[in-house]
Amino acid sequence: MNFYNFFTEEQKKNIHEASLTILEETGMLVKNKEAVEIFKKNGCQVDGQMVRFPRNIVNEKMSSVPPTFTFKAQNPDFDVTLPDSRPVIVTGSSAPNVVDPITGEERRGTSRDIANIAYLINELPGFDVFSISILADEAPPDMRSLYRFYPALKNCKKPVRSNTPTIPDLEKVLDMGYTIAGSKEAYMARPFINHHYCPVISPLTYDVESTESVIHLVRMGLPVYGTIVPNAGMTSPMSLLSTLTLGNAEFLSLCFLMQSVKVGAPVIYAVLSTVADMRAGDYAPGAIETGILQMGHSEMARFYNVPSGGYIGLTNSQLNDVQNGYETAMNTTAALLGGADLFNMGGLLGGLMAFDFAKAVIDNEIAMNLKQLRRGIPYQEKDFCLDLIHKLGPAGNYMDQPHTAKNMRKVTHYPSIGVRGFRSKWEHDGKPCAADQAYALAKKILTQPNKNAFPAELDKKVRDHIPGLPAGDASWYE
Amino acid sequence: MNFYNFFTEEQKKNIHEASLTILEETGMLVKNKEAVEIFKKNGCQVDGQMVRFPRNIVNEKMSSVPPTFTFKAQNPDFDVTLPDSRPVIVTGSSAPNVVDPITGEERRGTSRDIANIAYLINELPGFDVFSISILADEAPPDMRSLYRFYPALKNCKKPVRSNTPTIPDLEKVLDMGYTIAGSKEAYMARPFINHHYCPVISPLTYDVESTESVIHLVRMGLPVYGTIVPNAGMTSPMSLLSTLTLGNAEFLSLCFLMQSVKVGAPVIYAVLSTVADMRAGDYAPGAIETGILQMGHSEMARFYNVPSGGYIGLTNSQLNDVQNGYETAMNTTAALLGGADLFNMGGLLGGLMAFDFAKAVIDNEIAMNLKQLRRGIPYQEKDFCLDLIHKLGPAGNYMDQPHTAKNMRKVTHYPSIGVRGFRSKWEHDGKPCAADQAYALAKKILTQPNKNAFPAELDKKVRDHIPGLPAGDASWYE
Repeated sequence: MNFYNFFTEEQKKNIHEASLTILEETGMLVKNKEAVEIFKKNGCQVDGQMVRFPRNIVNEKMSSVPPTFTFKAQNPDFDVTLPDSRPVIVTGSSAPNVVDPITGEERRGTSRDIANIAYLINELPGFDVFSISILADEAPPDMRSLYRFYPALKNCKKPVRSNTPTIPDLEKVLDMGYTIAGSKEAYMARPFINHHYCPVISPLTYDVESTESVIHLVRMGLPVYGTIVPNAGMTSPMSLLSTLTLGNAEFLSLCFLMQSVKVGAPVIYAVLSTVADMRAGDYAPGAIETGILQMGHSEMARFYNVPSGGYIGLTNSQLNDVQNGYETAMNTTAALLGGADLFNMGGLLGGLMAFDFAKAVIDNEIAMNLKQLRRGIPYQEKDFCLDLIHKLGPAGNYMDQPHTAKNMRKVTHYPSIGVRGFRSKWEHDGKPCAADQAYALAKKILTQPNKNAFPAELDKKVRDHIPGLPAGDASWYE
Repeated sequence: MNFYNFFTEEQKKNIHEASLTILEETGMLVKNKEAVEIFKKNGCQVDGQMVRFPRNIVNEKMSSVPPTFTFKAQNPDFDVTLPDSRPVIVTGSSAPNVVDPITGEERRGTSRDIANIAYLINELPGFDVFSISILADEAPPDMRSLYRFYPALKNCKKPVRSNTPTIPDLEKVLDMGYTIAGSKEAYMARPFINHHYCPVISPLTYDVESTESVIHLVRMGLPVYGTIVPNAGMTSPMSLLSTLTLGNAEFLSLCFLMQSVKVGAPVIYAVLSTVADMRAGDYAPGAIETGILQMGHSEMARFYNVPSGGYIGLTNSQLNDVQNGYETAMNTTAALLGGADLFNMGGLLGGLMAFDFAKAVIDNEIAMNLKQLRRGIPYQEKDFCLDLIHKLGPAGNYMDQPHTAKNMRKVTHYPSIGVRGFRSKWEHDGKPCAADQAYALAKKILTQPNKNAFPAELDKKVRDHIPGLPAGDASWYE
C-alpha cells in the first residue's frame, strides 16, 4: 500500500529546506520566558523574545522524534496508537455551544451536555477518542476544567482528550486523574487524559500559557501535542505551498522545543492549515483546500516518519444538510488517502462553534466508512473464489450460495443511518432523512442508562476528594 | 504524483492471471451470434454459445488497447480526453424519472425535462460531458431515442453521451448527427455523440442487442465503450477481491471483442462493481464498497495502461440530505485519489432512479472540489513566498498584502452553494440550506434563455429532415 502523493522526494526536501530557512533567517517570536531559555540552551540565537534556529540543530532534534503516539484509555481495550490504529477518529473540541436536542436552538454548553456527549461517544463504534466537545458554561471560575473533565471521564471509557486554560486548572485535572486511577503512580502508568494545546500562533509566534502547559506535561512524561493553525490570506501567505511550508516550519520548531525538554517525547504532526474565504474574511475549514493542505502536511509527516492528522472534516454548515455531508466526507476521505492518521471530525457545526448530537451520529457513519475504506480490498488467495465462479458459471446467481451468507457481514459495512431500497419503501417508511435518523439514534442511546459510567464507589471517592463537582450524569433531556 | 494503491505489483499480476483463468477455464456465454463468430475467428474455443479465451490471445489483444479515450463535443472547446483531462465529470444516465421542480414529486421524464437538464449541464462548469439523464416517456415508440438526443444536442454543446435500445434507433440518432454536422463526412470527423452500452451482463454473459451496437460502432470507428456491473452477493461472489477479479475478466473479454473488430479501438475500463445490501437484497451503489472497488478497478486499469472510471458517486438517498452529500463525496473522492478518470456522478437520486435539478447543482459543487483536489498543491519556487514571510515576520497580518489580493481567486475555489461565516449571518439570511440554494441556482439558470441552443436555421434544417421531433426547448416550469 502507498498513499496519494503531491510531491517528489526532491520537492519534499526543498519544502523542508525552505522551512529551515524560515526558522533560521526569519525566526520566531517566543513570548514564554522558559521556552526562550530552553531554545537558548539548545543552541538557538536569541535576541529578546526573537529566536532563530540553526538548521543543523533543527535536523538533529528531529532525529529523536518517535514514529508513534499512543492515546491511553481508562479501559485498556480502547488504547489506540498512531499510525497503527489509523484512522483514529476523534470528536471536535471545545465549542462554546450545543444545539439543544429538544428546541433545536443553539445555547451555551453545560456539564450535563458533556456527560451526554461522553456517553454517546463511548457507544458509537466509529469514535476512538473523546475530545471534550464543548465548554461548561455554568462552571465556577476555579472549576472550569473540572466541570468538563469530570463528566467526560465519568461517562466515557475511551481515551479522553482536551486542553486546560492554565497550569492550576491542569493540576486540578491531573489530581482528579490520580484519584480515579487510585494513585499518582497508577495514573502515570496509564495516563488516560490526553493533552492538547495551541502553543504556536501563526505566523511564527509562541504564546505564554499553552507553551507553559506543553513544557510542563512533556517534562512529566505525559501525552501532549500541539495543533498549529495557519490561515492563508490572514496568518500565512495566499499560497498553498507557502502555507504548507510555514506550518511545517512551525511544526519543526515545536518538535525542537519538545525534544529539548525530553528526548524522545512523542508528537503528532497536527497542522490545521486552511485558506480564508477572502470575500468576507471568513474562516473556511470545510473548504476542500483544508483537505488538500492536510494531505500535504501528511506527506511531510511521512518525510519525517511521524504520525499526522488532527482537525480535519469540519463543516461550515450550520445544519445537518447536504453541505455538511460533502464537506466532512471529502476532506476526511482525501486526508485518509493522503496518509493522515488522526481525524478530529466529530459532532461540530458552524466551523467549530456548536456540538450537535445528530452530527456526531452522522460523523460516526462517515467514520465507519473511512475505516472500511482503510481496509480496502483484502488480498487472500482464497478470496478469489475461482472454484465458486467456475461452479456457478455464466448467468449464475450468488444470492442463495452458502458462501454469500457466510461472508455478507464480513465483507460489507451496514450503515446505521441512511436509506437503501426503492422509493416506494422510503415513502412507506415516512420519507426519512438521514439527519432525523441520526437524531433518533442518539436519543435511543441516551435514553438508556450508561452502564459504563463510574461505579458508585469510585464516583463517591472522586466526589469526596473534590468538593463542588457537578452531577456529571448522562440523562436525556425530556 | 502517484495514486493510492491497494496492491503490490505481484498481487496485480495475480489478479490478472486469475482473470485469465476465469476466461480460459470457465468462459463466457455469448448470446450475440456475430460476437461468437468474432471470438471464434480470433482463436477462442467455441461450443455453441459458450466461449473460452486462451490466455495468450487475451494478452495479445490487450497490447493494442490505446491509453486514451476522447469525448468530442459540438463545440471543440469542450472536447475532453481521458486521462489528461481528469477528472472528467459526467451526469448519471437513463433514469426513468425526474423530481418535478415545482411539486417536488417524482414523475416520468419528458423531452422538455431533457432540454432543461441539457441546458443546465451546459452552464455548470463542473460538468464535462452530458450523459442524457432520463428517458422521454411521451415519445412515440419509433422515436424513443430521437426524443432524447434531439433536446440534448440542441441545448448542450459539451460532449453528449447515451445509449440506444436498438440498431434502428442508433441509426436514426446518427442520421440526426450527420444533419447537425452538415454531412456524414463532417460528422465522422467530429463525432460528438458518444455511445455507451452494457453488452456484458455479470456474471460472464454477453447480451444480443447491446453487443450488436458495440460491434457496429467500433466497426464504424465511432466512440463507444461498455460498463460492466457485477454486484457482489447477487451476480458475483461475496468477496471484494473476487468481484474485482470477475469484473476485470469481463473487461478483458470486452477489450478482446473490440480489438478483434478494430485494432486500436479506444476503450474505457468502466466496471461499476458494487456489493448488494443482503439484508433486503438492495442495490447499494452509494455504499463505500463501491468506491473501494472502483479504486481497485482503476489500479488494474493502470496495470493495463487504459483510462478508467464511470458510474461512481451515486447515492441511495431519495433526498438532497446529508446522506446524499457524504455518499457522493466519499466515493468520488476515493475514486479520484485511487486514479479513476471518469465520474458519472451528476444529478441522480435513489440509486439511478430519478434526476433532480438541485442534485445536479450539488454535484457540480462536489465536481468543482474534485477538480481543485486534482490540482493539489502546485509546486513552483516562487510560491514559497519566503521573502514575504520574512518581511512580515512573526505575528504579521497577510490580509492587506497585495500578494493576497492578487492570488485569492487563483488559489481558492469559491463555492456556488453552501454557507460560510458566523451563525448570526446565517440566521439573518433566513437559515439557508445548501439544497435550497442549489435549487435556486438551477432555477436562476433555467429562467434565462439558452443562448447556446441550435441557431434557428440549423434547428429548422434538423426539424425539416426529421418530422415529428418534440419542441426540445429549455424553459422553466412556472
